[in-house]
Amino acid sequence: MKMENQLKIKVYYSDTDAEGVVYYANYLKWFEAGRTELIDQMGIDLKALREKENIVFAVKEVNCKYNAPAQLYDEITIQTKIKEKTGATITFSQKAIRGEQVLVESDIVLFAMDMKKFRPVKLSRIML
Amino acid sequence: MKMENQLKIKVYYSDTDAEGVVYYANYLKWFEAGRTELIDQMGIDLKALREKENIVFAVKEVNCKYNAPAQLYDEITIQTKIKEKTGATITFSQKAIRGEQVLVESDIVLFAMDMKKFRPVKLSRIML
Amino acid sequence: MKMENQLKIKVYYSDTDAEGVVYYANYLKWFEAGRTELIDQMGIDLKALREKENIVFAVKEVNCKYNAPAQLYDEITIQTKIKEKTGATITFSQKAIRGEQVLVESDIVLFAMDMKKFRPVKLSRIML
Amino acid sequence: MKMENQLKIKVYYSDTDAEGVVYYANYLKWFEAGRTELIDQMGIDLKALREKENIVFAVKEVNCKYNAPAQLYDEITIQTKIKEKTGATITFSQKAIRGEQVLVESDIVLFAMDMKKFRPVKLSRIML
Repeated sequence: MKMENQLKIKVYYSDTDAEGVVYYANYLKWFEAGRTELIDQMGIDLKALREKENIVFAVKEVNCKYNAPAQLYDEITIQTKIKEKTGATITFSQKAIRGEQVLVESDIVLFAMDMKKFRPVKLSRIML
Repeated sequence: MKMENQLKIKVYYSDTDAEGVVYYANYLKWFEAGRTELIDQMGIDLKALREKENIVFAVKEVNCKYNAPAQLYDEITIQTKIKEKTGATITFSQKAIRGEQVLVESDIVLFAMDMKKFRPVKLSRIML
Repeated sequence: MKMENQLKIKVYYSDTDAEGVVYYANYLKWFEAGRTELIDQMGIDLKALREKENIVFAVKEVNCKYNAPAQLYDEITIQTKIKEKTGATITFSQKAIRGEQVLVESDIVLFAMDMKKFRPVKLSRIML
Repeated sequence: MKMENQLKIKVYYSDTDAEGVVYYANYLKWFEAGRTELIDQMGIDLKALREKENIVFAVKEVNCKYNAPAQLYDEITIQTKIKEKTGATITFSQKAIRGEQVLVESDIVLFAMDMKKFRPVKLSRIML
């Protein structure tokens, strides 16, 4: 089970704002994509979980530091690692990196949720 | 039944892109809001339709002309009218207006859909 | 100088995702709007700052807790307060509230930046 | 000069809405990405145009038909071709395709613009 994912992203106008850089909320979209790819890589079938068991991941907490902005047409790597797992939550450590420079770094805490009952589900039901 | 809605919008960074103006896709978000308010004004309960009958509106066609761009902090009026109704579709004529100037104008065609069956529903089931 | 702003928001499809609730990044758009309105209320002309002095606010840190999700057509209040000010940064405390329930709460740290030089600007140049 | 680009896209939650499918405005983001890649492939340096000559492309018209919706985790191909070029405008024909099925098809008309003067620029200054 590999615990790291690297996702390549290119910045388009849709990601930017009138300050000429990537809008601060849009890193969270890339971080979602990175987590999805890492979970997929771990062999967890998010689509089946969702469609057969009504289980999805939901975000509980975002802690995000912005060191430097990504610019239009930049090529960014979204690095995603698992930082911590408890019975109920999983914390991802994620970075947006350009070349050697860490632009944005975050800890994002998720839990698994039954989408019908809006209730948390133990992570052991989903992943080891 | 009043067939026109005026929705006031203010432009924030999230709406703009690195050209310094509103990103072209974001007018479609405001147009969705405008249609929602007009339909609400017509006495149709979109929330009940969705939750009790699984019926939602879906977009079939967008035709949009961009005359001039909205800028950061602009105050925009989204004007929404019904242009045409058939048994299956409803066409909205919508404009983004700043002062006297029509910035963007669109015709957007929608149909009603059963969200579970992914099948069209006759409009007469919903509106006169 | 009133240090609190209440901004009314309505949830449309553009704000939501396939979990049926507001997408986690989209609260940050509303929080941006709330901060803009509070700063405006304090008598600071963000448009003039930007156009005449090339000064904008940039986000340095986001800490956000998600307690419960906003749903389609919900009416939400974005409450914005200033929590702390230093020579270089300003921290906003912001909440997304539905009725009596705090759905999302955040501390967001900003600094003022010279947009041409990509360099921080002392807050005392802008606000008391 | 190859006149077609194929861009692979994967659908994440950020692209979807509470109807469980991709939100109608978000195809326009992918179409922007597709056009950018095609223009790049034609040997036009959009970044240099923007930074050295203040020239960008702006959208004049969008005509878009939605045949079927893309779903969460779908893998989509954005196909981009040039349909027509005049002295002032370039029309792209773009499709979002899943497997053999054309989900969305569009004609999108752009023109080149001097970003400082907000004035159109002849396309012959940029491309043959």
